[in-house]
Amino acid sequence: MQEHHVVVVGGGFGGLQLVHGLEGASVRITLIDRRNHHLFQPLLYQVATTALATSEIAWPIRHLYRDRKEVTTLLAEVTGVDRAARTVHLNTGETIRFDTLVLATGARHAYFGHDEWERSAPGLKTLEDATTIRRRLLLAFERAELATSEEERQALLTFVIIGAGPTGVEMAGMIAELAHKALPAEFRNVDTRKTRVLLVEAGPRVLPVFTEDLSAYAKEALEKLGVEVLLGTPVTACSDEGVTVGETHYPCRTVVWAAGVQASPAAKWLNAAADRAGRAIVGPQLNLEDDPDIFVIGDTAAVNQENGKPVPGIAPAAKQQGAYVAKVIKARLDGKPFPSPFRYSHQGNLATIGKRAAVIDFGRFKLKGVLAWWIWGLAHIYFLIGTRSRLAVAWSWLWIYLSGQHSARLITQKETLKDEA
Amino acid sequence: MQEHHVVVVGGGFGGLQLVHGLEGASVRITLIDRRNHHLFQPLLYQVATTALATSEIAWPIRHLYRDRKEVTTLLAEVTGVDRAARTVHLNTGETIRFDTLVLATGARHAYFGHDEWERSAPGLKTLEDATTIRRRLLLAFERAELATSEEERQALLTFVIIGAGPTGVEMAGMIAELAHKALPAEFRNVDTRKTRVLLVEAGPRVLPVFTEDLSAYAKEALEKLGVEVLLGTPVTACSDEGVTVGETHYPCRTVVWAAGVQASPAAKWLNAAADRAGRAIVGPQLNLEDDPDIFVIGDTAAVNQENGKPVPGIAPAAKQQGAYVAKVIKARLDGKPFPSPFRYSHQGNLATIGKRAAVIDFGRFKLKGVLAWWIWGLAHIYFLIGTRSRLAVAWSWLWIYLSGQHSARLITQKETLKDEA
Repeated sequence: MQEHHVVVVGGGFGGLQLVHGLEGASVRITLIDRRNHHLFQPLLYQVATTALATSEIAWPIRHLYRDRKEVTTLLAEVTGVDRAARTVHLNTGETIRFDTLVLATGARHAYFGHDEWERSAPGLKTLEDATTIRRRLLLAFERAELATSEEERQALLTFVIIGAGPTGVEMAGMIAELAHKALPAEFRNVDTRKTRVLLVEAGPRVLPVFTEDLSAYAKEALEKLGVEVLLGTPVTACSDEGVTVGETHYPCRTVVWAAGVQASPAAKWLNAAADRAGRAIVGPQLNLEDDPDIFVIGDTAAVNQENGKPVPGIAPAAKQQGAYVAKVIKARLDGKPFPSPFRYSHQGNLATIGKRAAVIDFGRFKLKGVLAWWIWGLAHIYFLIGTRSRLAVAWSWLWIYLSGQHSARLITQKETLKDEA
Repeated sequence: MQEHHVVVVGGGFGGLQLVHGLEGASVRITLIDRRNHHLFQPLLYQVATTALATSEIAWPIRHLYRDRKEVTTLLAEVTGVDRAARTVHLNTGETIRFDTLVLATGARHAYFGHDEWERSAPGLKTLEDATTIRRRLLLAFERAELATSEEERQALLTFVIIGAGPTGVEMAGMIAELAHKALPAEFRNVDTRKTRVLLVEAGPRVLPVFTEDLSAYAKEALEKLGVEVLLGTPVTACSDEGVTVGETHYPCRTVVWAAGVQASPAAKWLNAAADRAGRAIVGPQLNLEDDPDIFVIGDTAAVNQENGKPVPGIAPAAKQQGAYVAKVIKARLDGKPFPSPFRYSHQGNLATIGKRAAVIDFGRFKLKGVLAWWIWGLAHIYFLIGTRSRLAVAWSWLWIYLSGQHSARLITQKETLKDEA
């Protein structure tokens, strides 16, 4: 009899945790990802804001499984799933047969019906997104140094972040610190301390998943860094000329989108029911009700908590789902019953604001300020994969902390100012 | 009276040494580069072969001069020089007036009349060149893992390096080590130890600037790593299908060009006499004979040694020229005579072969083997700019040395296998 073949699509937090959980099971595993690396997305904003290098938060997936001979890693893009034939179709023309299929393909940013905004307001999901934002950010200061009109200079020195979740807050804090502290000594024609960083949020407060007093603290900490926080008004227009918030137009040249996500097309591949964000609706064991050997986990699955609220689209949730599905698969292979449905256990929320402040909400344990910032840093170092990355990130942060200087201030991908325009 | 304005184009080794040499002089300096970073080109091949991260060998130029208030850094591309008006034209539309102009704009790779080869055989001069080669190198192994025909698999596992100077030798050694040592445990369908690395050189030996016995040692060390060295036969054809060396066709999918360079268009901007490689012909003080306030240094200048041989296109030569021109400018400003012409002092040649061997030729002092490799490493760390980079590179190398694992194995820039095709 041929060994049971588990095909996993997506090498994010969910997919990796699943493969980890299947260690020792008598299965053959094929892990397919369209990138060659696993990305530690919680720190991606630090690449976009020049604090970390790309290779410090990304690892070749196949390297993680070099000692797991039953795991085959393929770099390919899935184009569809044939449920009748039990195959996954790849963009390379190949088809891969599966006994069990797990889709953990994540999400992309979404523009709520304004896809034309993407060009001016890139989101932050991949390493290329991060180097694109890094390039635009650094080029804005370079162009301001060359600008001939005061109006153009001020537009170049205005940065707008749309969305005040953790990513938006963290980006805004880092850009403000860069402009107000790291860069002023290096420019001769322009005063980078005149930089305006606007954080725009349609909702009534920043970091809405935190408690109200932590939100209020975060807003205050942002304002201390020089960030202007605009709450309660949605963005109504967005172009290369600037951003309109409600009725007010802000001329600017650099916009970052941190406002919303859209699930990957996993539900479409399966021809399965999906929620409004495109996430596949799965049963209590995270599989399709009418096809129990097909699982969907992470940001591309619509799963509810016991209180009826949706499971949040964060790394710990995806990891818990990956670990859970590994247990379901193992129980089935062993012929054991596995009745208990998936239950999400919320560990808490963390967000950092610049170099000295953070907010932590672990339910009963809440914390803000410098100590929270240290806990945030240590927690993120702990969750990085591999000794080398932990040491490298710790070292980069220590360097920034002591010297105030960022280490990865590179403009890459495009050759000149002209190419970018 | 307005301060004397020195305009420097190019933030490579020559330009930086010049600005360094002008410290304390009563001049205003504008340094123009089309990139925002100075690049430590001698280690660029290590980015291309996944050993170092991009940010470990590149530094924002303006950061280097944050404490030199008389130095203005501009990110822009020069499009021409108007000698009559004493201005430099930028692609941003601006013109910059100069009293003294120093062009230190370097060189690009050249294909000796076969520009159509560039698409298949990229050279290695910029960070993007390095990440392009890194992507092709890593994608070749990924595609081999997915290949359905043995013929295609072998073509994917064949890597051809054209040109056996230091860059070619170093690239070939690193690729062989990657394929034969770092990667085999990570692939399931393909045996990366079957990788062929061909180093093709039209001349009679590898590392022609070294003595014959060091060349012979380098060839032997390369062959021990599994590199096939093809000497004395030029490449006659090069396409996406493979490379033809003399009459023999080698099917392959990854080719790297390390065979020749072409000067930047500095001579054209000046409408000055140039040699066959496009380098501006300058006088004994490195300036134009008919326009002594315009200097040309580094890889874009044609300068001869006392023995009649041309000054080599290496970092120490560019640095010496930058330092020399700084002295000339300072002497002029002080109204002192400065008669002695530029004299190149050759310090020696170094090249490394894989992780254990190197060759060193310091004239009377020659060395090969493990000790040479350590000296090579220490010398390169010493010449890196800044404490942070020295520590970061030292740490990356130590990690590779101890673990055998490379730290920057990222495929970036393109999303999928398909995009690249």
